[in-house]
Amino acid sequence: MKIAVDAMGGDYAPANNIGGVKLALESLPSIDRLFLTGDKPAIEAELERQQVPTGKLEIVHTTEVVGMDESPAKAVRRKKDSSISVAVGLVKEGASDAVVSAGNTGAAVAAATLKLRNLPGVERAGIASALPSEHGVCNVIDVGANVDAKPRHLLQYAIMGAVYSRVIFGVENPKVGLMSVGSEEAKGNEFTRGVFSMLRGSGLNFVGNIEGHDLFESGIDVVVCDGFTGNVVLKSCEATANILMKWLKAELKKTPLRMAGAWIARNAFRTLKKRGSYETIGGSPLLGTNGTTIIAHGSSSPLAMMNAIRVAAESIEHRVNPHIEEEIAKLASPEKPTPAQEEAVHA
Amino acid sequence: MKIAVDAMGGDYAPANNIGGVKLALESLPSIDRLFLTGDKPAIEAELERQQVPTGKLEIVHTTEVVGMDESPAKAVRRKKDSSISVAVGLVKEGASDAVVSAGNTGAAVAAATLKLRNLPGVERAGIASALPSEHGVCNVIDVGANVDAKPRHLLQYAIMGAVYSRVIFGVENPKVGLMSVGSEEAKGNEFTRGVFSMLRGSGLNFVGNIEGHDLFESGIDVVVCDGFTGNVVLKSCEATANILMKWLKAELKKTPLRMAGAWIARNAFRTLKKRGSYETIGGSPLLGTNGTTIIAHGSSSPLAMMNAIRVAAESIEHRVNPHIEEEIAKLASPEKPTPAQEEAVHA
Repeated sequence: MKIAVDAMGGDYAPANNIGGVKLALESLPSIDRLFLTGDKPAIEAELERQQVPTGKLEIVHTTEVVGMDESPAKAVRRKKDSSISVAVGLVKEGASDAVVSAGNTGAAVAAATLKLRNLPGVERAGIASALPSEHGVCNVIDVGANVDAKPRHLLQYAIMGAVYSRVIFGVENPKVGLMSVGSEEAKGNEFTRGVFSMLRGSGLNFVGNIEGHDLFESGIDVVVCDGFTGNVVLKSCEATANILMKWLKAELKKTPLRMAGAWIARNAFRTLKKRGSYETIGGSPLLGTNGTTIIAHGSSSPLAMMNAIRVAAESIEHRVNPHIEEEIAKLASPEKPTPAQEEAVHA
Repeated sequence: MKIAVDAMGGDYAPANNIGGVKLALESLPSIDRLFLTGDKPAIEAELERQQVPTGKLEIVHTTEVVGMDESPAKAVRRKKDSSISVAVGLVKEGASDAVVSAGNTGAAVAAATLKLRNLPGVERAGIASALPSEHGVCNVIDVGANVDAKPRHLLQYAIMGAVYSRVIFGVENPKVGLMSVGSEEAKGNEFTRGVFSMLRGSGLNFVGNIEGHDLFESGIDVVVCDGFTGNVVLKSCEATANILMKWLKAELKKTPLRMAGAWIARNAFRTLKKRGSYETIGGSPLLGTNGTTIIAHGSSSPLAMMNAIRVAAESIEHRVNPHIEEEIAKLASPEKPTPAQEEAVHA
């Protein structure tokens, strides 16, 4: 398997990107080749510094980088030789099976959408982000690829999110919820009520509206929402977790006694940190394009980068895209019953 | 000052409502009279059980209650003798200065909107919810009164939120942010870009787009958003805090050693819990109606109820509504410069 890594994207590039590559080489035997796109001298220096074995690596030199704050569409159109564009290009020409980037999310989405195009029948690609939950993970889709979504886009997100939940997380019949402001069908706004009726007739295991309260403890596997809502939810959850941990740390440092207690119980904090961290979950897939694109957190650590590469590898191994194509095709030809409808007929 | 308390609304009514009334009588000397609306025998039994002094209390018997899951508009129209409707009615007829409810939020909003009507010039009322932040509080408006908002509603929310921040929290020139998915002006969706240009010309201290990341640490005083987004944000933040504390507790209970450490540092956890709790912040005002309506959390404790009553008292004392009327009037007659414009002229 071959994966292209945008070596220059992210807040701590190329150091953490190369750190992730090193970890991936050590722990993911299915990888045959990693393309590293970016400034060759900088990448080589970092490989040298971190003593990364280069046997499976291929550096593809690029002269440009899309900054974290640049306008994505413009940057992708203008900077033809940016590390993200070239990495996506490797997927397009078939040299690489997938691309991983921790850079400007909008640029990664724009490059993938423009170069790879969507899978047959898919109208808009969406980013699925996995939140840690009581029972495993809860995939929220879309978290920002499509901020002016139409209800039918969310129907497709539900289908793609359910496929991802099934083939990557092994959930047999994923529970799909619609992010809203109350559980009853009438709750929500005009937009979500339109999505609700589509999801009810979809053949998916649709459990109805859910609320922010249900993200972590209700056993929902897939939460669908427009990209604006999903992005705000994701960042608000992250901000809450960060501030709570910050305040807890400050409180624990206030007296020597508290510090002693915290030191004694330190393993509890370590485990909690690991459980709540995006580092261990890995990157978020952009679902719906004709290629595998994994978006890592902008401030990814080496571990987070490695896990994003792992998610890319798993997406290919478990054939996420062929499965999505199959399910989306059923939507286009409704005479073909969905698994749930078939079951109902045979029951 | 006279305040009407919906004694039957909320998950733990009437016990916690009466508990809050008792605390309010003890700690808020400005209160002359508290009306308690609801089932008289049930309220009397609870007053007796909690040994509440009844000198300043007046029970207004009602025969109906709006359930937490009922359709708000229907319930308010049909249940004329519900505890929330009657409580709002007391404000309408001038017997009470404000109303406090922990019951069905939609019903409280519907009752207040229908009976009290909006302040002159206000198109839609909005709920302002105060999140604890690094520098004090961050008021998010609207968190659910108006889920199909228009951009101009958000302009009014910004004005009302800034007034509230100024007169209740003493922030001189509140920083107003627009909830979006990136800080640059072009970020967001069609809706937020429309709001952005209105806010820029408003004379408010508008700092631009903010993201979920900015809620707690950026020093923003007022965050404006449509009621759908605000509700989802609020509940997602609450859910994140709850699950983190649950996971931390579980980790700390895993071994005797960790338990010992946690016990030694216990005051840190107590302070943190208090800091992050809605209990101490009090209720959320419904801003924009011709009356003072404070919405308490559905699962309010006695302390939370007391603080909601306190917020009602402060809103009246500090004349929130007259201030809102004044600022909204400036919007209607733009020839009258806003304070910021005046300052610019004199600078």
